[in-house]
Amino acid sequence: MSHPQSIFQHTTFAPDSLLHRRRTTVSKTTLHTQLKRLRETGRYDCFKLQWHEIYADKSMWPVPFHLFWDSDIAKWIEGACYFLHDEFDAEIDTAVRELVDMIRSAQQDDGYLNVHYTVVEPGKRWTNLQDMHELYNAGHLVEAAIAHHQYYKNNLLLEPIEKYVTLIHRTFGPAENQLHGYPGHPEIELALFRLYHVTGNKDAYDLSRYFLEERGNRKGQDGQHYFEWESKQRGQSLYHRPDSYPEHASHWYCQAHQPILEQQTIEGHSVRAMYLLTAVADMICIDNQTLPSTPEWKNTLYRLWNNMVTKKMYLTGGIGAIKQWEGFGRDYFLPQSTDEGGCYAETCASIAVMMLAERLLHIELDAKFADVMELCLYNNVMTAMSLDGKAFTYVNQLGSSESDKSVREEWFWCACCPPNVTRLYGSLGGYLWDFGEESENDLFVNVHLYTKAELKFEVGAGEVTLQQDSDWPWDGYVKFRLTSPALVKTTIRLRIPGWSGDDFILEPKPSDDSVHLHKGYLTLDPSYTAANPSFSLTIGKFTPRYVAPHPYTNQHTLTLARGPLVYCIEDTDNAWEDNHFKDVGLKAGSPVREERRFVDGTEEEYIALKTSCYRRGLKLEDMGSGPGFVVGDKGLSFDDEKEGIFVPYYLRANQGGNGHMRVGLHHIQK
Amino acid sequence: MSHPQSIFQHTTFAPDSLLHRRRTTVSKTTLHTQLKRLRETGRYDCFKLQWHEIYADKSMWPVPFHLFWDSDIAKWIEGACYFLHDEFDAEIDTAVRELVDMIRSAQQDDGYLNVHYTVVEPGKRWTNLQDMHELYNAGHLVEAAIAHHQYYKNNLLLEPIEKYVTLIHRTFGPAENQLHGYPGHPEIELALFRLYHVTGNKDAYDLSRYFLEERGNRKGQDGQHYFEWESKQRGQSLYHRPDSYPEHASHWYCQAHQPILEQQTIEGHSVRAMYLLTAVADMICIDNQTLPSTPEWKNTLYRLWNNMVTKKMYLTGGIGAIKQWEGFGRDYFLPQSTDEGGCYAETCASIAVMMLAERLLHIELDAKFADVMELCLYNNVMTAMSLDGKAFTYVNQLGSSESDKSVREEWFWCACCPPNVTRLYGSLGGYLWDFGEESENDLFVNVHLYTKAELKFEVGAGEVTLQQDSDWPWDGYVKFRLTSPALVKTTIRLRIPGWSGDDFILEPKPSDDSVHLHKGYLTLDPSYTAANPSFSLTIGKFTPRYVAPHPYTNQHTLTLARGPLVYCIEDTDNAWEDNHFKDVGLKAGSPVREERRFVDGTEEEYIALKTSCYRRGLKLEDMGSGPGFVVGDKGLSFDDEKEGIFVPYYLRANQGGNGHMRVGLHHIQK
Repeated sequence: MSHPQSIFQHTTFAPDSLLHRRRTTVSKTTLHTQLKRLRETGRYDCFKLQWHEIYADKSMWPVPFHLFWDSDIAKWIEGACYFLHDEFDAEIDTAVRELVDMIRSAQQDDGYLNVHYTVVEPGKRWTNLQDMHELYNAGHLVEAAIAHHQYYKNNLLLEPIEKYVTLIHRTFGPAENQLHGYPGHPEIELALFRLYHVTGNKDAYDLSRYFLEERGNRKGQDGQHYFEWESKQRGQSLYHRPDSYPEHASHWYCQAHQPILEQQTIEGHSVRAMYLLTAVADMICIDNQTLPSTPEWKNTLYRLWNNMVTKKMYLTGGIGAIKQWEGFGRDYFLPQSTDEGGCYAETCASIAVMMLAERLLHIELDAKFADVMELCLYNNVMTAMSLDGKAFTYVNQLGSSESDKSVREEWFWCACCPPNVTRLYGSLGGYLWDFGEESENDLFVNVHLYTKAELKFEVGAGEVTLQQDSDWPWDGYVKFRLTSPALVKTTIRLRIPGWSGDDFILEPKPSDDSVHLHKGYLTLDPSYTAANPSFSLTIGKFTPRYVAPHPYTNQHTLTLARGPLVYCIEDTDNAWEDNHFKDVGLKAGSPVREERRFVDGTEEEYIALKTSCYRRGLKLEDMGSGPGFVVGDKGLSFDDEKEGIFVPYYLRANQGGNGHMRVGLHHIQK
Repeated sequence: MSHPQSIFQHTTFAPDSLLHRRRTTVSKTTLHTQLKRLRETGRYDCFKLQWHEIYADKSMWPVPFHLFWDSDIAKWIEGACYFLHDEFDAEIDTAVRELVDMIRSAQQDDGYLNVHYTVVEPGKRWTNLQDMHELYNAGHLVEAAIAHHQYYKNNLLLEPIEKYVTLIHRTFGPAENQLHGYPGHPEIELALFRLYHVTGNKDAYDLSRYFLEERGNRKGQDGQHYFEWESKQRGQSLYHRPDSYPEHASHWYCQAHQPILEQQTIEGHSVRAMYLLTAVADMICIDNQTLPSTPEWKNTLYRLWNNMVTKKMYLTGGIGAIKQWEGFGRDYFLPQSTDEGGCYAETCASIAVMMLAERLLHIELDAKFADVMELCLYNNVMTAMSLDGKAFTYVNQLGSSESDKSVREEWFWCACCPPNVTRLYGSLGGYLWDFGEESENDLFVNVHLYTKAELKFEVGAGEVTLQQDSDWPWDGYVKFRLTSPALVKTTIRLRIPGWSGDDFILEPKPSDDSVHLHKGYLTLDPSYTAANPSFSLTIGKFTPRYVAPHPYTNQHTLTLARGPLVYCIEDTDNAWEDNHFKDVGLKAGSPVREERRFVDGTEEEYIALKTSCYRRGLKLEDMGSGPGFVVGDKGLSFDDEKEGIFVPYYLRANQGGNGHMRVGLHHIQK
């Protein structure tokens, strides 16, 4: 049991891979530009507890502009600490030290540590757990403290944060003199379990478990739902509600409509849902270390995961169709664009899916989890940052429209996504593989993702290294080289992606039954790895394929994919298009040509795909004078053939154009 | 210029037509069962102003259960008076007289007349125009009073209602001592224009015009939007809002987000929108009688109508996709069922579309308006009542689902639809045609709908009758017979439905240019009608056709239609289906057979359609472990051929079965 945020430093990415390029960009550019934004916007010194003009801005309710500043700082610190492991950077190091000093100085005598409730609304702490992100901010401080502790090997941040955790643990719980509440925005739960894992802080475990078990209790506080009770304490009707609550008491927005164990479908704000389930998964992992956890938590987790990936996830790994609550629609409601009814697919949400998928791999090693993790990484997550590392998306639609073109922004008032990208890339090494000693001299390495990288760790008998070398995501040939001390037996499990259809070749070929495939992982027994410390895996099906969303989505689209990548089409490469590809179709099975290309003026190499597209002859906007039309009457057929050039979805909005883009084109049936 | 509610009694429906059967059912059964419901629920004597237990029920906010009782009574009186013209009915007559006595006795000294604000919240009148339906109830009382006056030829109801109108006129207006408000639920506007038309009450005209012109004014009251101002007066935050307001200040819900003239698309609650536009159309008609109205109102009306019928109307004439606000979604968002994202298509809304379309025919005689009027009548409206006249639908989805099967109910707490059906059928004769003297001895009759009926009216020179005889909606052959006094010149204009593709035959054939087609109306000049007092029109294309919604709806469905009827498929006729026809497709152009049938044990004859349906082989619910699938991998094809039996949509849920029904089946492209 380990967390990617703790083991990432065992991985060294080698140059000339896509992942290495992205990590270098974040390290050299993004961390610095984000620091600049923190300074420019006032966030940087918010823990000095001085008044900022924006604190007086009441134009938003209930969440004022500055409410997440604590977490913006915390997430930046966390990401910065991850990258400092790679390479020392004086500017970053200085900033982290200053920020930690300011955070320390902001702590109240009793341990409390929150800018808003210290500066803006003193005396009102814990009065609005539903909306005010107080525990969410605390959770990110916990994660920052762990990362800080792991890099700096001191307790300058961990010590005050653990004091804050102690206060929170004293405040919330089942006892009569405690509040029976839990965060509106889950986050602290997963942070507390990590804290427990790193420090053994049992209060952190107990508190997090309490939050999970109490959530959604209809009669938790004075016989009432906690959020309804606290609303009454504030003298606020349930109909007096944030815009994210479409109807009164829409507690599904924050997954509190019923106890977690009773929830049948994944609902509400997608980031909240994923952070929550990541904590659930981690609790199962922790509990499994002693006694196998009771099945209901795992059953619930699987039920909600399955509902999400089969009915509420986009082909790009994006989740959340609805802007109003930044979250899930009903089953199969997966429109591509604003003018089709929505598409949110927030960057943070897919990062959180990766976190959750990674935890699930510790509960059960099944490639279906890693497939989704990789899908998110190379598509919905990677598309969120520009090639230069300076601009971001918050929302990742699959189709553009006049009101929402395919573009990136330099920053957001609610700046959750950019630093989340930073910390994900920072800890990315921890997602490639996990490893451990099953017993003395009996090792395993589970390889989830392929790239160019080296894993290095110590066991009692000495140092183990595993190198992988590939041209992923472009090619399926992966060379491995294992070095380990004599006597150490090493089992290596290699993920075979679902989209490959189990088409793979292992070289040298095993001569006996020392290799077997189980739930998408090819297990190389110690006898094989001892005999073949150098071996290679070739994943097949690295050719373009046509994929489609579930028929019940009513999308009727085709999308090009290749390996782990989902492709899109942009007007910059296809200057014939001026209507967001709404009237453009593809025919399944049409031949697709590949072309290696570079993004102009960069080392960013990629494979473009070319195939025939077909455009509707007729402009459809002003068809007829009534609803619908008689089939056969109109020239609705797709008869204007064009060559279409497709690029990986992660590359969109980097090469000019007018922001017209689409992932799924109309499926023309022959 | 005339209103169907005023001229309907010039029409006599002849037996053996679908419309005659429905009107007889309403007259013999529905009026009586609805009266029974009014008595059972306490509505009947609510104007006695005594306390009812349900008044104390605070479980709904802001609209309590009894808030519309005034209008339920008013609409029933209105419908009853229409049917009393046909045939005297002692029970109905007695009830109307008693109700009118009670209403008279409920009026306050100053003219005020509203149950809720007299009994439940005295002293709070006019404090919540946005939500509390005070002016809506008043509007329905006005309509009841007009109907009552026209049948009883006395002022027992009209007199107190005009007194109430005087009070309202004094209360609302531009003067400093007046409230600059307007109803949250439009209705009174159209009622006031009808009152002006019938009585010449200029206050009624002025008040209605004021409501239309003031609506959506962002700075109408003390520099604020009226609904925001009154909300503040009540000490209520804008975030404290009804469930129908998904976000704060969602004034588009009641078409008050901007002045009507600035509105570019039809938005919000669909019944409100249609009642409002009916009033706008009527104002244009009234103004046109003196001076042609300025173009901006007509332009706005046309813009909103076109947006609605081309982008927001179902193939059945239903409008409104979204349950939460009982209204319109974005352009082209027209899912068929709850599990596809919604479908509301309220009965009242399509009745209101008929009212609006009828008004538009007075502004411009264009068959596109009458096409929509007929579409609504024979489909979304007619499907709302069971064959026995005792059960109703409120919502008319195009596809059933497990949560919302295709069934009817006996009553609704919000009982707007059943009495609306009653008054529509009561005044239906007024929708068939309109007529008038363009100058002395120069008559016209514009025929909008075909059935078996006789129109009879007096002109200075004597009596004019026009008989039409047809087997509509089954056959396009319509015989006409005109009798009119010598000297009277009669122009007859006959609608040629758009779906007929101008395929029609007039017999006798005109030998000169006395017949011409303009905007879908075939004009028979007086020379033709004088020479041919008996003539016939045969509308062609009375064969099954495949229709489809706009491609941008992302529906990809085919629907069978024939003449003015849209067809559906039900499990009762197709016992092989058990999943709401979600996996069943049609191929355009497949041959369709017709079969004349009777509903068992009734005289309800209809034409069923039979064609091949194709079902997906695979159960799709649990496909794969990730989002989407590789095209070609799965057995998604529609290869299980079944004979499908289709019935008119209006007949659904009358012949047993499990409530599985669908209008649009998957469009299988060959």
